[in-house]
Amino acid sequence: MARIVVKFGGTSVATVERIRHAARHIKREVDAGNEVAVVVSAMSGKTNELVGWVNEASKFHDAREYDAVVASGEQVTAGLMAIVLADMGIESRSFAGWQVPIRTDDAHGAARIAEIDPSELDKRMKSGWVPVITGFQGVAPSGRVTTLGRGGSDTSAVAVAAAVGADRCDIYTDVDGVYTTDPRIVSRARRLSKIAFEEMLEMASLGAKVLMIRSVEMAMAHKVRLVVRSSFEDPDAPQIGPDGLPGVPGTLVCDEDEIMEKQIVSGITLARGEAKITLRGVKDKPGVAAAVFGALADQSIVVDMIVQNIADDGASTDITFTVPDSEYDKAVNAIEGARSAVDFRHLTGSRGGAKISVVGVGMRSHAGVASTMFRAMADRGINIQLITTSEIKTSVLIDDEYAELAVRTLHTYYGLDMKDA
Amino acid sequence: MARIVVKFGGTSVATVERIRHAARHIKREVDAGNEVAVVVSAMSGKTNELVGWVNEASKFHDAREYDAVVASGEQVTAGLMAIVLADMGIESRSFAGWQVPIRTDDAHGAARIAEIDPSELDKRMKSGWVPVITGFQGVAPSGRVTTLGRGGSDTSAVAVAAAVGADRCDIYTDVDGVYTTDPRIVSRARRLSKIAFEEMLEMASLGAKVLMIRSVEMAMAHKVRLVVRSSFEDPDAPQIGPDGLPGVPGTLVCDEDEIMEKQIVSGITLARGEAKITLRGVKDKPGVAAAVFGALADQSIVVDMIVQNIADDGASTDITFTVPDSEYDKAVNAIEGARSAVDFRHLTGSRGGAKISVVGVGMRSHAGVASTMFRAMADRGINIQLITTSEIKTSVLIDDEYAELAVRTLHTYYGLDMKDA
Repeated sequence: MARIVVKFGGTSVATVERIRHAARHIKREVDAGNEVAVVVSAMSGKTNELVGWVNEASKFHDAREYDAVVASGEQVTAGLMAIVLADMGIESRSFAGWQVPIRTDDAHGAARIAEIDPSELDKRMKSGWVPVITGFQGVAPSGRVTTLGRGGSDTSAVAVAAAVGADRCDIYTDVDGVYTTDPRIVSRARRLSKIAFEEMLEMASLGAKVLMIRSVEMAMAHKVRLVVRSSFEDPDAPQIGPDGLPGVPGTLVCDEDEIMEKQIVSGITLARGEAKITLRGVKDKPGVAAAVFGALADQSIVVDMIVQNIADDGASTDITFTVPDSEYDKAVNAIEGARSAVDFRHLTGSRGGAKISVVGVGMRSHAGVASTMFRAMADRGINIQLITTSEIKTSVLIDDEYAELAVRTLHTYYGLDMKDA
Repeated sequence: MARIVVKFGGTSVATVERIRHAARHIKREVDAGNEVAVVVSAMSGKTNELVGWVNEASKFHDAREYDAVVASGEQVTAGLMAIVLADMGIESRSFAGWQVPIRTDDAHGAARIAEIDPSELDKRMKSGWVPVITGFQGVAPSGRVTTLGRGGSDTSAVAVAAAVGADRCDIYTDVDGVYTTDPRIVSRARRLSKIAFEEMLEMASLGAKVLMIRSVEMAMAHKVRLVVRSSFEDPDAPQIGPDGLPGVPGTLVCDEDEIMEKQIVSGITLARGEAKITLRGVKDKPGVAAAVFGALADQSIVVDMIVQNIADDGASTDITFTVPDSEYDKAVNAIEGARSAVDFRHLTGSRGGAKISVVGVGMRSHAGVASTMFRAMADRGINIQLITTSEIKTSVLIDDEYAELAVRTLHTYYGLDMKDA
């Protein structure tokens, strides 16, 4: 017997029929003797409809009213889910965020959860009830409804799981787990049975849009084991893990220690549309980097990769960084505008770069991970424009033309390809 | 300067554009120096959509979950209205029923308002804010959201008006007032400038679907002056009352004492689809009526007119009553089933009756009102099947074929026709 929080995203509760299907997953867990709480998103499309109305009402709306309007979506789903569960003979009731209560700060539209009172949920779960909680929302100290920002339902689910001390938090979505890379690019991409929180964070921020970063951070901080799994699978099918053995289908996101056989590399990610800008002959003196990136931050331009080499002649250096393609002109203007503070010879740059990263906690203890990457690129004649590294990630910037080839090559070189059946 | 509660129904807030139009009515009142609170319904069609989902989820749903789902509709409108008002430079905020709070009993789906705490609303209104309150809902002692039943937003508006001591409660709807009769039947129907609460109650229960009976009852009990007016009129047009003088357009529903020149008859109403059942030769002894109508009540059949004459031979009498056409068979079966308790000679009946009523508080002090009605029917050769009277109403049941003719004739005979322009 386990205590489980399950979360269903918008596509999993898009219609009453889909809600009924999702409820069968819940029933399976209840029938297995588990204590279950449910967190739901709004029906797919509903939040966009509500946001559209708010923007139509006024471009300059009070965030508190935005929240009052937009939070209604999950209330509908929670009530419908409670009704469907009751119809299946499962005792259930819905809870709006303010009813739990899920207390947040007062940053309306992007609130952070401060505290969840678990007592009512705990009492219900112990006596076999299934509480259904609205995701994405809570209540501010003022008593007004808050929302957590888009995708906040994952965060709600993790926070509820932490509050009630759940053994795991199952995130039901429209994919069946986390893959070694994008299966649309690499047909032999494999579903991972386990991935460490840190890896998931790097994967998420690099474009594997399965889980919101915030929810992974919170899960890591509170040691809440997450399972990414598909709500579209047959709820009554035998529960087979990705390793073919009985278990929970999907990918377990967990503490590194729980992963016995660590892959050196767990995944390859791709981020396209990266523009690079190089400042040549920058005077090598303290405060230069601050001046460059201060000028960009003032324009709210998000910088991704940053590379600075040591000065070759002891007097000047080159700085290269990447920004989204769409911010390229703005970034160039910002730098030119700051020319009095940033003394450089000339600026070069171009749009259309692709960043390829290999991610894996095993890198910490294994030499040669980066060199495999560079060899793979060399073998395919792909020119590496930039290299950055972190503890569990190595990234290169290459020409976008070679993006898919690079991902497929690295997937093979690191031994991630699915074996033939 | 006045304190006003204004209420907008579903068609008046059906889109963001309509909400903006409604807000201009509010702005006009604010600009005139009035203190204003707003009560809103769900966008037209939304409540039906939500109820549809609930019924799709389960025919046998928990009324508490029904309320959780259905109450979301007004929350959307309230937030959008607050945003639109702010956009017009009016300080505003939305209140869900539980935030006011509007305390109700726990009869989910058909809750009654127990108490409204006016302190927050009062404070806001005094400092020039316009609170926007969700109609149709409140919060039960358990802390769960309740709804008041369909059309409950009128009741919410009246209750809020009573709680904040409003000078009047403007009910904005898609008609511009209460008419002497249905203008689709009588082209010369006139809009009434004033109508007494008691008359409005009779009119509402007889089929003039402008206001919910409950809200009129509550307004009468708390002496809240109601104005029925159209949200579709130009908000910036000069405020001209129905008498052509400056004032509030629409119909004022108020205490009888406030109506200086009382019409003897204020309106003619028509209710179709009335089936009549006559029990002939009923033994004239105590308890017979109780047996007849008890049998019908057991089947939840709503009886409208009831007529019993004194027994002509001192031993037996005839009882006639009407029920909706759709309940006719059920009613006949119920009576036949109770034959052992109700001793009668035989039962006759037919569907397709029309009930015509003349309503007016002036009847109390004027003789001859009923006789005018009977003369009018006789002049047109219309046979009267049944007659019932109350203090301010006289009703007759006639063949449905003559319904429009009867209404038009009475409208003329009682001097209600609009004068030529």
